[in-house]
Amino acid sequence: MSNNLILITGGAGYIGSHTVVEVVNAGYNVVIIDNLCNSSEESVRRIKSITGKDVIFYKVDLLDKSSLEGVFEKHTFCAVMHFAGLKAVGESVSIPLKYYNNNIQGTIHLLECMEKHGVKNIVFSSSATVYGDPQYLPLDEKHPVGGCTNPYGKTKYFIEEILRDVVIAQKGWNVISLRYFNPIGAHKSGNIGEDPQGIPNNLMPYITQVAVGRRTHLNVFGNDYNTTDGTGVRDYIHVVDLALGHVAALKYMMQDNCGFKVYNLGTGRGQSVLEMVKAVEKSSGKKIAYKITERRAGDVATCYADPTLAEKELGWKTERSLDEMCKSL
Amino acid sequence: MSNNLILITGGAGYIGSHTVVEVVNAGYNVVIIDNLCNSSEESVRRIKSITGKDVIFYKVDLLDKSSLEGVFEKHTFCAVMHFAGLKAVGESVSIPLKYYNNNIQGTIHLLECMEKHGVKNIVFSSSATVYGDPQYLPLDEKHPVGGCTNPYGKTKYFIEEILRDVVIAQKGWNVISLRYFNPIGAHKSGNIGEDPQGIPNNLMPYITQVAVGRRTHLNVFGNDYNTTDGTGVRDYIHVVDLALGHVAALKYMMQDNCGFKVYNLGTGRGQSVLEMVKAVEKSSGKKIAYKITERRAGDVATCYADPTLAEKELGWKTERSLDEMCKSL
Repeated sequence: MSNNLILITGGAGYIGSHTVVEVVNAGYNVVIIDNLCNSSEESVRRIKSITGKDVIFYKVDLLDKSSLEGVFEKHTFCAVMHFAGLKAVGESVSIPLKYYNNNIQGTIHLLECMEKHGVKNIVFSSSATVYGDPQYLPLDEKHPVGGCTNPYGKTKYFIEEILRDVVIAQKGWNVISLRYFNPIGAHKSGNIGEDPQGIPNNLMPYITQVAVGRRTHLNVFGNDYNTTDGTGVRDYIHVVDLALGHVAALKYMMQDNCGFKVYNLGTGRGQSVLEMVKAVEKSSGKKIAYKITERRAGDVATCYADPTLAEKELGWKTERSLDEMCKSL
Repeated sequence: MSNNLILITGGAGYIGSHTVVEVVNAGYNVVIIDNLCNSSEESVRRIKSITGKDVIFYKVDLLDKSSLEGVFEKHTFCAVMHFAGLKAVGESVSIPLKYYNNNIQGTIHLLECMEKHGVKNIVFSSSATVYGDPQYLPLDEKHPVGGCTNPYGKTKYFIEEILRDVVIAQKGWNVISLRYFNPIGAHKSGNIGEDPQGIPNNLMPYITQVAVGRRTHLNVFGNDYNTTDGTGVRDYIHVVDLALGHVAALKYMMQDNCGFKVYNLGTGRGQSVLEMVKAVEKSSGKKIAYKITERRAGDVATCYADPTLAEKELGWKTERSLDEMCKSL
């Protein structure tokens, strides 16, 4: 365990690839596994070109336990960062079993392999959606969890509970669960970014596709929420800030026996959908056409973080502005 | 779907086998699958001898999806009763991944097979443990869930949530989740009962083993709870009453599109551990030696049901007395 090799699941995806870049820049070596179901190997090539370092890549699905086992046999990891998972809220409502199977079982396979090979440090990609409909704002880590409004969010919550129980059961495990608010933007190189295959599920790739003319307009899901302009309010965080939050968590975990810890990764500020549309129009100089449509099942009105715990314990806070986020798109 | 064939998972186990008897007595045909990890095929032979009817048995583990798939290909089921699952609270705290893997993944495989073969009715073996530490008593079905104190209970809660989401996602599904309080006792024939392999996890098989001299004494986990005599208080329900609750749920489900429903199965009365010891001493005429030991991780002080919803909607209530429960042991 004296090495500095990190396994990053889902490392070819949007948040995963940005995090790989920062983890490599921080001096760690990285093995990526990804099933490429919502990403491509091209992002691995771009990670290499941005960092000038080699990263090892395996096309492995976490549901394929014997292939996963093979990766753990080939390499000795000091920690795992676990991004792999399905993430489309709407789809999770329509096909819940697919989400439960992929996200929960994939994680169980990963934890079983870690257990077998004595790897006991893991940073998990959680989400602010575990808080459900906020009982108060800003959301701090003590806010009750589990009132999730969709299967995607429930998988994040269930996995947190599973990780919590593993730490209780076995000495020496360290788990940091990072609850993301709404990651947007891209690396300043412009070489990696969010370019999902098929229809985007999140606001910003959708806006981007409208800006570049790939779509005629943006669908805004509801303008009758109890917010300043009626559209949903979220805490948008630059994906590079988010990636740096992972590096901070990794460093903290490697120097301390931290047990099970949870941190919000957000800016502490909320922006409405229409404010984001205006911000993109301003930074791109292009008009973003939009249509108001019905509310989307499982969405909450307003959600933003209290990020002070991560600042206090991990020494991390966001540093990139909304304007930088929009420009980097 | 005009047949009356019911698939019963875990049908060779304690509650499963008692339920098979009552389901067969109610005129249904039954296929049992069981991995026999905590039961034996002998109980299937005894079910046949008690009912005088044939039941089909396959030794199948729910984690072995292709074997499970084979059972769905061979038979056309109108409903499933899902008992299979690991159930030792203490063990679940020590080896949580085993519980999450078996109980959650086993259920996902079952639901995927049901979906594929158009079987959309399921009665699920849940537990009062989903309520966590009671916020009020008696526990009704509106009591908040999810504050479970151990991985076993969390698997029950997670599966309920998965089932809820399946009903939301797909038209035509009917799910009844039965939240058991503490099943004890045995069929009056004396031919089937609770005889777990290895060390029993529940109170009554333990007491029985002391009564028959297989163990020197009973361990009572804590006498400093806030109850009349300091020992834990539970709502003990005769397993035959519980089995009849399943038949009532099955009939209700087959005549109505019930969607997702939850019912408590309990008596509405609480008994302490020491009260149960005395009751068994009285009915068996034998002295039960016991030692007070430390509280067991994950146990709550007091837990008993409000069973009125099941009476109102399913037309079911318990009919067997504590004395009958103790005698039938």
